[in-house]
Amino acid sequence: MISGPLPSWNDGAAKSAILDFVARVTNDSGPDYVRPAERIATFDNDGTLWCEQPVQVQVFFLIDRVKELAAKDPSLKERQPFKALLDKDLPTLKALGKKGILELFFATHSGMSEDEFYQIAQAWFASAKHPTFGRLFRQMTYRPQVELLGYLRENGFRTFIVSGGGIDLIRTFAEEAYGIAREQVIGSSARLQFEMQDEHGIVMKEAALNSFDDREVKPANIGLHIGRRPILAFGNSDGDLAMLRYCRSGPGARLALLIHHDDAAREVAYDRDFKLSPLADALDNAKKYGITLVSMKNDWRDVFDHA
Amino acid sequence: MISGPLPSWNDGAAKSAILDFVARVTNDSGPDYVRPAERIATFDNDGTLWCEQPVQVQVFFLIDRVKELAAKDPSLKERQPFKALLDKDLPTLKALGKKGILELFFATHSGMSEDEFYQIAQAWFASAKHPTFGRLFRQMTYRPQVELLGYLRENGFRTFIVSGGGIDLIRTFAEEAYGIAREQVIGSSARLQFEMQDEHGIVMKEAALNSFDDREVKPANIGLHIGRRPILAFGNSDGDLAMLRYCRSGPGARLALLIHHDDAAREVAYDRDFKLSPLADALDNAKKYGITLVSMKNDWRDVFDHA
Repeated sequence: MISGPLPSWNDGAAKSAILDFVARVTNDSGPDYVRPAERIATFDNDGTLWCEQPVQVQVFFLIDRVKELAAKDPSLKERQPFKALLDKDLPTLKALGKKGILELFFATHSGMSEDEFYQIAQAWFASAKHPTFGRLFRQMTYRPQVELLGYLRENGFRTFIVSGGGIDLIRTFAEEAYGIAREQVIGSSARLQFEMQDEHGIVMKEAALNSFDDREVKPANIGLHIGRRPILAFGNSDGDLAMLRYCRSGPGARLALLIHHDDAAREVAYDRDFKLSPLADALDNAKKYGITLVSMKNDWRDVFDHA
Repeated sequence: MISGPLPSWNDGAAKSAILDFVARVTNDSGPDYVRPAERIATFDNDGTLWCEQPVQVQVFFLIDRVKELAAKDPSLKERQPFKALLDKDLPTLKALGKKGILELFFATHSGMSEDEFYQIAQAWFASAKHPTFGRLFRQMTYRPQVELLGYLRENGFRTFIVSGGGIDLIRTFAEEAYGIAREQVIGSSARLQFEMQDEHGIVMKEAALNSFDDREVKPANIGLHIGRRPILAFGNSDGDLAMLRYCRSGPGARLALLIHHDDAAREVAYDRDFKLSPLADALDNAKKYGITLVSMKNDWRDVFDHA
């Protein structure tokens, strides 16, 4: 019988660090008390809240989107990088890098309104499935993390996503999957432009990148969107390291967590060799930076929701 | 005896429009029901939630800040636009325009961290007083609007500020004055940069403007920060018109409100001649745009909190 909070977490150092931290910051007669207004928790998304293997979900969305575009313009099938996408040529895609993929993502979703984008994305999430796990992408979220988000909110935290992925795509499913409202999602973004069309005001997505929300840009965007340093931050790659160190640099109790994907049996074991989002510096220096390591293999009782 | 919600609002068309709108969108068996996730309300700040006369509060903050800087560098006293600020030369300041003042604001607050800025701003708000009303600036908020914000939240709305003013300055007092958390404040912003200084991660304010959150930029920034079209929007100038029309352009029940400052006895009567933020197009075409006018003189029982 499992009782108490975080049932999908095994007893151990990581779970204890979380429970202890939450107990301290919510104890209003203790020295580490943090008033609710300041209980900000920020989470990376890809690889932290859901599976990012063999490539980020966004790449599969992009592939299907380019397929639709190629049906209208067959010349795309022979042009790179579209050809690599259509052939699911993962080595070529990985060579584009996270930012290259993102630029392609925004380029193929410009000239449409936010509302039009949401309709396309929602329709895709309704049926798109992971190629090897066989379940819907939106069911590829990590059960222990969904529990953790809820546990933090029950304890007066406000939970935010701070992702290198496209902000609009995450907003399409974050409310249902994580209980995170659209305005609590921060991510990479295209430039937006307000227009009146036939007396109807709409916000259009342009082909230009507004912000690539990775590495040092994550804390800067936290400054812009939240205006307050998080007291808890959770990531899984070197792209999250600046955010984790930003969290740790504040006064008082702080908790910075890093998932290590070491579970080949239940998910995928990877770290420094994942070109689209490597984990090396943060892993090698976790102790020095005051970061608590979470082993997927040892610390999580379950990884995904039961079917 | 006044009973019921919004006691500082007089009975009349504006109050009825608000009460009726809230009743309709929260009635889950009616045709206009809006689920709580979509109950987004956006408010301009200067002139909508607090007094912006004779110039916006931010200008007084800037004057006091330049005084401090001039104490260290007396040459500022003879250089424009600093001289105009130090002499409280309002015509010259107004000629700078809203954007010119904002650029000066960011220029004089660059090279410091967000934390340092908050300390300066908090210290200023603790004692700075309005030149003619004689009360603290943070007590210059409109009592009927503070009531309205609370009333909307009690009815499941999330309330946001969308202001042309500097985002960090508003975040300093919005929580206490309006019950609006920092992350629910959108405004003009300087570019931010994350840096490690002696192993300590901080977000620095740069001298460059990131976003001038006025006119068409307001709905674009709502797209970036909130990712959802507001169902209620409230402003007081042509700088808010794009936001009001964006609100009105969505499907279902919508309420766009515009304060007209027509109360010379209790505040200041002004509209199209206020150079720093004129009201003309929105006032002249309110009916055509489906905007509900609010007369400060007739619709508000009180303007400010009782001393």
